[in-house]
Amino acid sequence: MITIETRNCVDVVDITDQVERALHDSFVESGICLVYSLHTTTGLTINEADSSLINDILNLLQRIAPRGGGYHHDQGDGNAHAHLQATLLGNSVIIPIERGRLAMGTWQRVLFFELDGPRRRSIFVRILAD
Amino acid sequence: MITIETRNCVDVVDITDQVERALHDSFVESGICLVYSLHTTTGLTINEADSSLINDILNLLQRIAPRGGGYHHDQGDGNAHAHLQATLLGNSVIIPIERGRLAMGTWQRVLFFELDGPRRRSIFVRILAD
Amino acid sequence: MITIETRNCVDVVDITDQVERALHDSFVESGICLVYSLHTTTGLTINEADSSLINDILNLLQRIAPRGGGYHHDQGDGNAHAHLQATLLGNSVIIPIERGRLAMGTWQRVLFFELDGPRRRSIFVRILAD
Repeated sequence: MITIETRNCVDVVDITDQVERALHDSFVESGICLVYSLHTTTGLTINEADSSLINDILNLLQRIAPRGGGYHHDQGDGNAHAHLQATLLGNSVIIPIERGRLAMGTWQRVLFFELDGPRRRSIFVRILAD
Repeated sequence: MITIETRNCVDVVDITDQVERALHDSFVESGICLVYSLHTTTGLTINEADSSLINDILNLLQRIAPRGGGYHHDQGDGNAHAHLQATLLGNSVIIPIERGRLAMGTWQRVLFFELDGPRRRSIFVRILAD
Repeated sequence: MITIETRNCVDVVDITDQVERALHDSFVESGICLVYSLHTTTGLTINEADSSLINDILNLLQRIAPRGGGYHHDQGDGNAHAHLQATLLGNSVIIPIERGRLAMGTWQRVLFFELDGPRRRSIFVRILAD
């Protein structure tokens, strides 16, 4: 399990190194790695860990599902936009394992999106050998 | 295989208990569970099973890809919006298994989205031990 | 590994037969198949391989995240829209395997989306038996 303390209402954390460490500890050489967020107002995606691109992604999410957009669910927690943005991103990624390493492309990183923070968040890592 | 008879053109069904039952019958204690819809006009996602939030998600999908939005594919079946909305949601979810249970967060549920019903729909559940 | 030479800046390729061939060569009868793109400006999704629908999907992506939409990342590579569209599609799909075949629905095909081509692209196929 990876635990993160996010620092703002919106926060993006590159967790690739933590996933790679979990894989290293598993001694699995070939298989798949599931990275799964246990929350409904966070997202996981694989893309480039470039700060300008991350801002573009956050702006896109805010444009598609803006905070305070007159949602039904906002009469409860006031975080409907975060659930909607999480739905668009998805809550897990899955990565092939080859020779004991994540078989990712040159620019690919595992990015965790906090959309309703700051909070303590938990991410499950499950590794299967083939 | 989980079979659902959806009741309307748009319908959202919480299938978590059915997935949990399939897992129980498999006797797998640790691994992953793939839930896979066999259709091109339905979606699967993991989020909170709150009716106001579900309405917000449906409204968002309808806003992004409205029914009758002048699509090329509508000259055929007239359900292009349902294919587009399904593409945004994705057609499968994958969940870690721990101690014979789905290792989901407190508020997480497996939600099936019918986007071109009512129809009989089939969802494949595949469980792998680690 | 599946290798594709895409032909345009935007290009959609049905790679189902290539995935099926990789599965055939693996001799796995029951399990799951992960199809994973190694790139940050491409997407993978499962839907109908109908050319009018594919145009509708491309138009939707262009409407949500248009090329040249004033992105921060465009001051670098000029391909921010492709990263954003890739984020919406996701970079992998996962399919159950049953009796040595992909257990897909009648209309389902594995579609690779080139969003910043033309380029040579690599797609990892990982097969796990249950």
